[in-house]
Amino acid sequence: MITSTSNAKVKRLVNLRKKRKARDTEKVFLTEGLRMFEEVPEDRLLEIYVTEHFYKKEKALVDAKHKKSGCQMEVLTDTVMNFVSDTKTPQGVLCVVTQENQGEAWLEKELKAPEQVPLIMLLDNLQDPGNMGTILRTAEAAAVTGIIMSSDCVDVYNPKVIRSTMGSIFRVPFVYVENVTDVIRQMKEHGIRTYATHLAGELAYDEPDYRTPSAFFVGNEGNGLRDQVAELADIYIKIPMAGQVESLNAAIAATVVMFEAGRQRRH
Amino acid sequence: MITSTSNAKVKRLVNLRKKRKARDTEKVFLTEGLRMFEEVPEDRLLEIYVTEHFYKKEKALVDAKHKKSGCQMEVLTDTVMNFVSDTKTPQGVLCVVTQENQGEAWLEKELKAPEQVPLIMLLDNLQDPGNMGTILRTAEAAAVTGIIMSSDCVDVYNPKVIRSTMGSIFRVPFVYVENVTDVIRQMKEHGIRTYATHLAGELAYDEPDYRTPSAFFVGNEGNGLRDQVAELADIYIKIPMAGQVESLNAAIAATVVMFEAGRQRRH
Repeated sequence: MITSTSNAKVKRLVNLRKKRKARDTEKVFLTEGLRMFEEVPEDRLLEIYVTEHFYKKEKALVDAKHKKSGCQMEVLTDTVMNFVSDTKTPQGVLCVVTQENQGEAWLEKELKAPEQVPLIMLLDNLQDPGNMGTILRTAEAAAVTGIIMSSDCVDVYNPKVIRSTMGSIFRVPFVYVENVTDVIRQMKEHGIRTYATHLAGELAYDEPDYRTPSAFFVGNEGNGLRDQVAELADIYIKIPMAGQVESLNAAIAATVVMFEAGRQRRH
Repeated sequence: MITSTSNAKVKRLVNLRKKRKARDTEKVFLTEGLRMFEEVPEDRLLEIYVTEHFYKKEKALVDAKHKKSGCQMEVLTDTVMNFVSDTKTPQGVLCVVTQENQGEAWLEKELKAPEQVPLIMLLDNLQDPGNMGTILRTAEAAAVTGIIMSSDCVDVYNPKVIRSTMGSIFRVPFVYVENVTDVIRQMKEHGIRTYATHLAGELAYDEPDYRTPSAFFVGNEGNGLRDQVAELADIYIKIPMAGQVESLNAAIAATVVMFEAGRQRRH
């Protein structure tokens, strides 16, 4: 049992929670809570940390996960778990998991030999972890085939993002790209129609036909899409807004367009 | 200038930030930041608190608001503003504003002589401040006519809710009701069709016709709608979800149904 917050393992966990660089160097990230613990694929589970209380309560689950994955396990005191955790009231379980997304392979395939009709979200400079996580979760529900992010988007392995994904982080293909312009050009060459969600949209979001290969561009929370990205889209679409609302939250705007595409594709 | 965090005025502001009871006793709430400051109607503005830096930067705006409203104004040191603020990096302006929503009057009118075709959101035990604020903001954009909340929903005057509304708090009618059952019965008597968003929905959310008077019920983040509320709905609707997603975030689910109603009503 680890009882001291100055333990080297504890310091490493805090680093992994706080620092993107630490996560990327080790190619791992942290998950917290029962729900995420249940969702972690065993072959990606490297380490389990539990409190005594959690272990007693969920012994069968913990032992099964521990055995199947063959990973390391340690017990932390409540104080140490509180110190390590990203939440105010930790649930008592934390995992170290490998970063291992099929995003790059997905993108290459999506462009050349897509298995389904592509429905792509391209996120440009999205900064809020809650929005990013919510978009991942909602994207899975809306049958989005994958997510492309500009390299200056928030880190998807940020603990707040992970928490908001409710497990979708393990299932939705995503990829960071250095050169958004280049990817957009490739998408267009491969017959994917590109839509910029934009306050200056010419068409309402429900006017185009999304049953063909489609990609939506969604921009930063405060500033919207950067001009040089928006300009590359085939069509600007807008979400009509009543009242005096000037803009929608980025995750809300993404939801509206993703579910409209999903709706059309079900009919 | 207030320079001490032990000043009685400062203590009161902290109480107003932290305690629903303090807000309800005084019938006021706090707003923070430039955007909300611009949005506060002058006739509801009671007190302005600014840092010297903010005052210098936005002198014309502050003076105009101060003069038009005839309210009190005080300068706080940065330390005091930090102490009072709900955010880590305060923008330097905080207001005390009257609680004054036309929700009760709206509901009475909506049931008997609605001005438009009602589009009502009924929120049952919604707990997350961010979700509540986002629903208010999105509801205004989707032309929702008003929001009904069970009395155990999160306080709309919670600073996190206020922040997420981006000003919609001043424009969307809302009302807390003790007896949700009774209000639902009244809505039905007045010809408003009621829809429960529910995992056990028989119809997809885009199948009903929402161009007639409609009300959507949305439940708690973790548990969904309470049975006794869901059971009163005319129709259970579901949002089809792909992948392994078990549920959507409450604000996301609300967005999907609100914007579908809005979409139908535009056509």
